[in-house]
Amino acid sequence: MCLINGQVGSALPVDDRGLAYGDGLFETIRVRAAQPTLLDYHLRRLRRGAEQLRLELDWAALQSELLLMASQSGVGVIKLIVTRGSGQRGYSVAGAQQPLRIVMGSALPEYPPDRQSQGVELFSCQTRLASQPLLAGLKHLNRLEQVLARSEWLDSRYAEGLMCDQHDRIIECTMSNLFLRWQGHWITPDLSESGVRGVMRDYLIDRLAEEGDPVSIVAVDQLMLHECSELFCCNSLYGVWPIVAMNGLRWPVGQATLAAQQIAKQALL
Amino acid sequence: MCLINGQVGSALPVDDRGLAYGDGLFETIRVRAAQPTLLDYHLRRLRRGAEQLRLELDWAALQSELLLMASQSGVGVIKLIVTRGSGQRGYSVAGAQQPLRIVMGSALPEYPPDRQSQGVELFSCQTRLASQPLLAGLKHLNRLEQVLARSEWLDSRYAEGLMCDQHDRIIECTMSNLFLRWQGHWITPDLSESGVRGVMRDYLIDRLAEEGDPVSIVAVDQLMLHECSELFCCNSLYGVWPIVAMNGLRWPVGQATLAAQQIAKQALL
Repeated sequence: MCLINGQVGSALPVDDRGLAYGDGLFETIRVRAAQPTLLDYHLRRLRRGAEQLRLELDWAALQSELLLMASQSGVGVIKLIVTRGSGQRGYSVAGAQQPLRIVMGSALPEYPPDRQSQGVELFSCQTRLASQPLLAGLKHLNRLEQVLARSEWLDSRYAEGLMCDQHDRIIECTMSNLFLRWQGHWITPDLSESGVRGVMRDYLIDRLAEEGDPVSIVAVDQLMLHECSELFCCNSLYGVWPIVAMNGLRWPVGQATLAAQQIAKQALL
Repeated sequence: MCLINGQVGSALPVDDRGLAYGDGLFETIRVRAAQPTLLDYHLRRLRRGAEQLRLELDWAALQSELLLMASQSGVGVIKLIVTRGSGQRGYSVAGAQQPLRIVMGSALPEYPPDRQSQGVELFSCQTRLASQPLLAGLKHLNRLEQVLARSEWLDSRYAEGLMCDQHDRIIECTMSNLFLRWQGHWITPDLSESGVRGVMRDYLIDRLAEEGDPVSIVAVDQLMLHECSELFCCNSLYGVWPIVAMNGLRWPVGQATLAAQQIAKQALL
């Protein structure tokens, strides 16, 4: 099922600026018990993006469409795309007055369940993330770097791929954020120049702080990967996967990771 | 008029990866006498992009659709978009088997004619281009930087906006490439880390070399802007516009620029 500006449909105008320029944003939201999970966090990120791109969205309509789709789905995933809508040819936003909202329902992805308990192996991607402070953190529609990185491996032994920036700093995975247990504390990469500020990342930062185990946002270099005692990747669909192997390095499924995984499960399941 | 995979239409499937991730390429082609202009150059760039993104296009169908659209238009612009087509949710290209071709016809943009003869003033954009060697030079669908840059000015006295990279090197304009007359020769910015390799840029490089006035591709810093005796911007729709002013700097409409403008006119008019 799909709603386009509130109407059931499955096609959009060919002159939409989301297609032409990636001029828009998206969110991928897990649905449980006919409700969107972590909705405040998703909407907060969407607001930051809309502000940066100067997209004027109809927030009331958007929220009611998300709730309607969740009530129809019961359990599953909602993908929300908002674009600047149809415009004239050319980069100028003049004339693009009516943003487009697309709300799509689908089934939950079927990940092997032992990823939660046994952990996952990462592929080490060669594709480097560009530095662009104006767009960093946002979940915008310009995602060719992720497409290129995800195309680097086919072997299903790798659940995710690690991405670095052009200074070899560790930033994120293709569809996940990273947390490292380093010197007895959680750290997560600074995303002020590149990367997506994931909803689960922000949720875990808030909840772990409440539980007395605060997360530091820092520049993460390769050495820290060697030095950390545990690490995990996370997103708002699957929650937390312990990372146990990459490029010959090994890490255990640790207690701090399992605690974070529990927090994620409470929000999603 | 619009052709979608050869069929008349105006709607795009909502799960197209061009919309989801900007996973595709485009070309904007001027039509004269019912023929596309500079078609070899457009197709060559498209091939480079398709190779880098590993898009397998039906080149025969694509060319015949471009020729059909040109014959219908007579005079105007064809915008071609190719995407990886519909896929599952997620960055993996697995399952996206059928690329989408969109061929749209429209009227020529109506630029004031004195831009050719009197030259144009540039706005100096604050938006910086990120460095991404894997995508530099390609005309892909991830164009938020250009959208942000073009949103910086509204005043119609500025015909174009100058864009630099994060090292303050001069790269291009939002929809044009740049040529500078420096120490008696043409130079144009190196685009190996950012920017779009415009069809008119490549055409002028080839033709000026043939005419004994070769163009050097170099890193262009701010000082060279102060030192150059003429400069112009170019693209495959309008040809060549002399640049006469930016940020208090002034340049004349020079003879070398007028010679390049003539070469462009022969290809486009």
